[in-house]
Amino acid sequence: MDYYALPIANLIEQLSKLPGIGRKTAQRLSFYILEMDPLEAEKLAVAITDAKEKVHYCSVCCNLTDGDPCHICRDDKRDKSTICVVEGAKDIIAMEKTREFKGLYHVLHGTISPMENIGPNEIKIKELLNRLSNEEVEEIILAINPTVEGEATALYIAKLLKPLGIKTTRIAHGIPVGGDLEYFDEITLSRAMENRREL
Amino acid sequence: MDYYALPIANLIEQLSKLPGIGRKTAQRLSFYILEMDPLEAEKLAVAITDAKEKVHYCSVCCNLTDGDPCHICRDDKRDKSTICVVEGAKDIIAMEKTREFKGLYHVLHGTISPMENIGPNEIKIKELLNRLSNEEVEEIILAINPTVEGEATALYIAKLLKPLGIKTTRIAHGIPVGGDLEYFDEITLSRAMENRREL
Repeated sequence: MDYYALPIANLIEQLSKLPGIGRKTAQRLSFYILEMDPLEAEKLAVAITDAKEKVHYCSVCCNLTDGDPCHICRDDKRDKSTICVVEGAKDIIAMEKTREFKGLYHVLHGTISPMENIGPNEIKIKELLNRLSNEEVEEIILAINPTVEGEATALYIAKLLKPLGIKTTRIAHGIPVGGDLEYFDEITLSRAMENRREL
Repeated sequence: MDYYALPIANLIEQLSKLPGIGRKTAQRLSFYILEMDPLEAEKLAVAITDAKEKVHYCSVCCNLTDGDPCHICRDDKRDKSTICVVEGAKDIIAMEKTREFKGLYHVLHGTISPMENIGPNEIKIKELLNRLSNEEVEEIILAINPTVEGEATALYIAKLLKPLGIKTTRIAHGIPVGGDLEYFDEITLSRAMENRREL
């Protein structure tokens, strides 16, 4: 690609490594950055370096945080007897936005996936079990995504927790609010039927 | 937004300033960057700073370049008697990919737009006229985008060039190759009819 000056080609290449950003978008973004106010571009570069430097895993729940423990683990008003287990730090944001859940979290940073060589030791399951020996936990809510890997991971964790006598629950599967029956697959539909509730 | 640690919130904010990147995408990209290999993230940050530092306008054609003059203006094999005038540096890439045009370029870096307070002096028209007094140019091809502002800019430049006796042409408007008549607006269609050619 000798159409571009080297620093431009490099910027396009680096941007196109981001998820959902193809070469065309990377090219558009690069030219936008090149025409941007230099101060603004600097802010963007610094924000990346800064976030990578300052943000790390919370030593308790493995959430992404700049302090330790993270602001949720530090919060005295939260119910320490319930832990909601999620796949990624961004799932915590989604949960927090519901303003319903007042317990703590645990971030696995992935799911067990033999296809991608990710075993139970590659994700933060050990850290979860360690917490259970130190904290008085009554319920573990497995809010892992309902994908094939997510389901397998949830079952694996549930099996580990069984001997500990801690109540383990899984978030409900069904039709999303505002959804239309005809657009959902059979598995979702049959789960929604299975888990029907009396009104 | 107290859901996020400060460096994460800052990264999301900076990313969401880029075109076509909303808050949701910025959030997704931020979490991806946070989970990325630190070396790769550093490369991205450096690519931004580097591009901004090293890339500037070519003193001849105003293309974005890291050398001066740019590799096109420097190239002895190019036909110096034809200048193709485009709006942005990325239009040069699009043109070069056709491998048809062998002349030089001139980048305006915008179009005249009274609505946005961009007059003829805010874009590189003066630089184009300067070139014409130094170089022996036979034809100016106005390859400015066929938007309202682009058309106005093309007409304005054509008017300026008239007294100089230089042949001034405009790229053809019509139906794109592979296009379907029913999907194009009346103006495009009537231009395509107007500019029909005998076979």
